[in-house]
Amino acid sequence: MTEIRSVEWVGGEDGHVRILDQTLLPGEETYIDISFLKSACEAIRTLKVRGAPLLGVFGLYALALGVRQLGNSTGAQKAMQDSARSIKATRPTAVNLSAEIDSSTRTAKNVEDVSMLVAMTIARGSAVAKSDAAASDMIGQHGQELIADGGLYLTHCNTGSLATAGIGTALGIFKTAHRAGKRFRVLVPESRPLLQGSRLTAWELEREGIPYKLCCESALGAIYSTMNVHATITGADRIARNGDTANKTGTLIHAILCERYGVPFYIAAPFSTFDTGCPNGEGVPIEHRGAHEVRRVKGILVAPAEANAVNPAFDVTPAELISGFVTEKGILQPPFGD
Amino acid sequence: MTEIRSVEWVGGEDGHVRILDQTLLPGEETYIDISFLKSACEAIRTLKVRGAPLLGVFGLYALALGVRQLGNSTGAQKAMQDSARSIKATRPTAVNLSAEIDSSTRTAKNVEDVSMLVAMTIARGSAVAKSDAAASDMIGQHGQELIADGGLYLTHCNTGSLATAGIGTALGIFKTAHRAGKRFRVLVPESRPLLQGSRLTAWELEREGIPYKLCCESALGAIYSTMNVHATITGADRIARNGDTANKTGTLIHAILCERYGVPFYIAAPFSTFDTGCPNGEGVPIEHRGAHEVRRVKGILVAPAEANAVNPAFDVTPAELISGFVTEKGILQPPFGD
Repeated sequence: MTEIRSVEWVGGEDGHVRILDQTLLPGEETYIDISFLKSACEAIRTLKVRGAPLLGVFGLYALALGVRQLGNSTGAQKAMQDSARSIKATRPTAVNLSAEIDSSTRTAKNVEDVSMLVAMTIARGSAVAKSDAAASDMIGQHGQELIADGGLYLTHCNTGSLATAGIGTALGIFKTAHRAGKRFRVLVPESRPLLQGSRLTAWELEREGIPYKLCCESALGAIYSTMNVHATITGADRIARNGDTANKTGTLIHAILCERYGVPFYIAAPFSTFDTGCPNGEGVPIEHRGAHEVRRVKGILVAPAEANAVNPAFDVTPAELISGFVTEKGILQPPFGD
Repeated sequence: MTEIRSVEWVGGEDGHVRILDQTLLPGEETYIDISFLKSACEAIRTLKVRGAPLLGVFGLYALALGVRQLGNSTGAQKAMQDSARSIKATRPTAVNLSAEIDSSTRTAKNVEDVSMLVAMTIARGSAVAKSDAAASDMIGQHGQELIADGGLYLTHCNTGSLATAGIGTALGIFKTAHRAGKRFRVLVPESRPLLQGSRLTAWELEREGIPYKLCCESALGAIYSTMNVHATITGADRIARNGDTANKTGTLIHAILCERYGVPFYIAAPFSTFDTGCPNGEGVPIEHRGAHEVRRVKGILVAPAEANAVNPAFDVTPAELISGFVTEKGILQPPFGD
């Protein structure tokens, strides 16, 4: 089976970034080519491309597009700064996006040649992709120790090849264990409002042949209280120095239910998702999204037409509820960055 | 404003039961007339009519339809027993349905005249409706003491005029407080998979002019951990003698989050929803529904076409998480039935 290429730079400096449009899965497997900054930002905002580690890669390719597009009129450095600002504003919670862009703009702060800056940024994106894929592999190796033959596991949202440049974080652990011959089952919450669980994680698990069942988030109480769940493993969008973890809304419910029912709760994430400059969860900016995502499902109105909604895209799980952090260097405990 | 008539017997013994089709709300307000047992059972199964207290009323009207339809060929008593069995099988968790039917068949066990049995059963349905409406009013009166001006409240699923023969239980409390001039806000979880929150509760709150916002169940962790929720009030489908409470799937998540974040958690229900013959939550049968409800939203596929799902319609909240039970006799504590 070929691995999924969810983000890829195609061609040289005059090339473009190709993404698998995640909003059309699982019904359609459609790739789209993006050549301009505005379309790149829009792709992030509408979640055509998503997942903290993957956004680290995509953000750099978007930055290259912005510099190429604006550089000749504004100068390379201003084009880079303006593009960086636009890209970082699209998704404030996921740390990889802003961290990779900040690191790249610092490194390139003396490069005045547009063409060289574009080439450098593309190369950096490709290097981050390679390094992220390697991190996924190591997370899978370390994490598969948590998976027992015959066990039942829960996850949340999507943390696979559609969220990273490799096999994934939490989902990468399931893939690695399954490829090593372990047999187990995964329960996949749909992850309302945008259904990354039932659309994306289900699609990836089917490709791998890993047995799974869907559930609604509303069923999590019934599931944890009546089924024998062996462990829950999710990804992360930003991990603070003390271990507090921002991740897709719904994660905190898992963590609290895990504590109550004695189920180990793990976060799987590469070092690039750790923000050691952020002391704890209170410092993590939480993105709130529009009410239309709650009012509508796939464009179909399921509520009064003018209904407002509270729609946080992420929640913060306190470190004390997390049994361990599966990283490329093994299963770790906070504090981080010392 | 006219009260909603969600279930009504129209005409005499040769009449029919008229229901507001809840699957079409909030888009369409369509009433349908049901004259045969099979359509009545189908209406329960597909949730055209739902809500524990309302099913107590509707079940009796369905029983009258069954006796009228089958009585002349099988005899009144056999028609009643056969109909009772079919109706009770449609929704095993909600106690009112089976309790009202059992009580009615016991009372009428010597009635051999089909016409008389039909008339008795219709009359009993109307009496239960009247008594349930009165219970709703009293629950509203007792419960509105829990509502403070300026407060923020959470509920779950739908517990209003679409779930009872009156103003409702939890939703009846909000209506009573609002009609008494209190000003407060309600957060309404959508209640996946069938969206009784965003479709039905939102519709009823709009009619009343009570300010509300929707949320997905996945957002409940973020909401309880970051917003100042004054209290959560839900309904019940069956309350055991020790206070363990079966209610729409998702209720247990509220109760556990309320405990963690210090929010009072109340159940509002009439005595007819208490099952004192059931010692605790373990005795409550939990209905599991089809995977199609999770795979599809309003008929639209949102997951792989063959994906299986865990889809419990209810969960059981242990009594120790419940601050009190708002009933027509005041706010009570277990054990019940002594």
